[in-house]
Amino acid sequence: MSRLQRLRQSLTQQELDVLIVSQPENRRYLSGFTGSTGWLLISASNAFLAVDFRYVEQAKKEASDFDVVHVKGDLVNWLPKLTSDLGFKKVGFEADQVPFAIYQQLCKTVGDGHYQIQLIPTNGLVESLRVVKEPEELKFITEAVKLADAAFDHAKSIIRPMVSEKEIAWELERFLREKGSEPVPFDIIVASGSNAALPHAKPSEQVILENKPVVIDLGARVNGYCSDLSRTFLLGDEDKTFSKIYDIVLGAQLTALAAIMAGMSGAQADRLARTVVEEAGYGDAFGHGLGHGIGLGAHESPRLGPNSLDLLIDGMVFTIEPGIYIAGWGGVRIEDTVVMENSRVKTLTKAEKIANVC
Amino acid sequence: MSRLQRLRQSLTQQELDVLIVSQPENRRYLSGFTGSTGWLLISASNAFLAVDFRYVEQAKKEASDFDVVHVKGDLVNWLPKLTSDLGFKKVGFEADQVPFAIYQQLCKTVGDGHYQIQLIPTNGLVESLRVVKEPEELKFITEAVKLADAAFDHAKSIIRPMVSEKEIAWELERFLREKGSEPVPFDIIVASGSNAALPHAKPSEQVILENKPVVIDLGARVNGYCSDLSRTFLLGDEDKTFSKIYDIVLGAQLTALAAIMAGMSGAQADRLARTVVEEAGYGDAFGHGLGHGIGLGAHESPRLGPNSLDLLIDGMVFTIEPGIYIAGWGGVRIEDTVVMENSRVKTLTKAEKIANVC
Repeated sequence: MSRLQRLRQSLTQQELDVLIVSQPENRRYLSGFTGSTGWLLISASNAFLAVDFRYVEQAKKEASDFDVVHVKGDLVNWLPKLTSDLGFKKVGFEADQVPFAIYQQLCKTVGDGHYQIQLIPTNGLVESLRVVKEPEELKFITEAVKLADAAFDHAKSIIRPMVSEKEIAWELERFLREKGSEPVPFDIIVASGSNAALPHAKPSEQVILENKPVVIDLGARVNGYCSDLSRTFLLGDEDKTFSKIYDIVLGAQLTALAAIMAGMSGAQADRLARTVVEEAGYGDAFGHGLGHGIGLGAHESPRLGPNSLDLLIDGMVFTIEPGIYIAGWGGVRIEDTVVMENSRVKTLTKAEKIANVC
Repeated sequence: MSRLQRLRQSLTQQELDVLIVSQPENRRYLSGFTGSTGWLLISASNAFLAVDFRYVEQAKKEASDFDVVHVKGDLVNWLPKLTSDLGFKKVGFEADQVPFAIYQQLCKTVGDGHYQIQLIPTNGLVESLRVVKEPEELKFITEAVKLADAAFDHAKSIIRPMVSEKEIAWELERFLREKGSEPVPFDIIVASGSNAALPHAKPSEQVILENKPVVIDLGARVNGYCSDLSRTFLLGDEDKTFSKIYDIVLGAQLTALAAIMAGMSGAQADRLARTVVEEAGYGDAFGHGLGHGIGLGAHESPRLGPNSLDLLIDGMVFTIEPGIYIAGWGGVRIEDTVVMENSRVKTLTKAEKIANVC
């Protein structure tokens, strides 16, 4: 069944006449439109893509299954009238996407204009379709994973003492782009020494030093689809703390990779890895979740974390990335991108897990 | 007066006990914190920065004027309790930033938890401070403008027939980054021939052809601050339509640069350029606004467009970018980044306005 058909089933279940889709990845997923601004209006029998002047031509090219409507001015100036003119009454909108101010303006206009429409907040209708990947989507993600793997191989060959984090991060970004990645899905992290204690460190002028941990976290993008890869290693082999921490994180990751099964919740998956870290005495140092879904978004459903009720099922693609962070010393994170197949995790990432580069 | 002091004056005027700031550029402007997630809580005598585990260390480093609070879980789990514990009653939030779903959850929790707080939507409190640039901000923008100028010079030297839009766009991005730009503020546009009719074209495999218009739109980023530059030219000199359209757009741009004065509205400024385009018979082909403010955001206040009531005053930095787009043929856009000084527009952009490259 096509993506639109599946969404229309949700509309029927939710008793909506039309759903307004404004979340960028949802919009692209359903329509193919890649512009920065636009609204889908999807009903049982219609599929409109409303865009402003800048995107009319592009929308017609990219979203051939949609009727392109050229709209002018703010949403509030055209949406109530357009939906009302089309005879829609129950109008769903993406509640986690639409700002409160826009909702307020729409309500006021609906009231003032005596439009017979009702604004109904919805949650995750399109996200729940996106969460299980189609073969073509998996192909693009796999290509993005391969690019990330190649970039990590490149990293091993260029990292040497006294080169700055920033220089290496840029060289990896350049490599990814020149090998075919679209603009990278997130700023590349190269964090050395105590900077590695910051899970989301920004590459700095700090130079790589021997016998200090180096965390590299990077991703590529192919046809909109992302990959995400982290590796940590020591340039040298003289840090006993590093070996110990590395082995705990690797153990936690391998445990999760081996034991996660379809039907578990995101919290149960997280627990598998967290138990390993906790039993080694570093529970407090693993302060983030185990992983996140990945696709058109660099972070999307499902979420793997202590409180996540998301159910893991076949066809989902997500990361598994335990970490330990110690202020002043540094940190270790090991992350793969995986797909759930035949009720088990299949690791897409092939980059070597290597603790020491000499 | 410091940024926080000025914001506190607004809080007093709006009778707010505390303002929650979640818009990324607003957060950075007030605190210096550059992470992707975090919430400022600003009252008459306190300034907190609430972040999750990933950002605790970074927040302490970057936001030295703020007390860093380590929070766990969703906003709804900690914000009502934290504000209530601190004794705040009237809690302002950024209505154009906070999604409706979050607002709903907060309201429910406030009700359920019997917290004595009141959620009050606010609009543009921090944006209205950001709109007039301080000398240091202008310095960073000027550096970003110089990088963009240098990239355009580079473009002229590398553009030749049969090279693809994508190759040129990437070469310009590489140039900007290697000359010192942070990740570029928006995807670079290189649009040739009929693609130039798309105001927000994506670079494609289409190769540059002689005697077809080429639009280049690029920007740099320095210390968070952006620049924005567009130029259009013909590789060759054999297209009579091009010369005509180019001269109209250039005339419209020069008119705006010469005539915009402090005290005008964004609509009045837009009108100056639009009249030139309309009188030449191409009014319908200039479908976007004349320009937009620029700073930490690539697009921010003020807005220069047909319906903009934004008042233009000294210290504002914005773009002036009229364009004419003709489906099937192509388009012309000429864009400078300018600052309002002594009630007049001062052009920061120095890139040559050249109609033909041979």
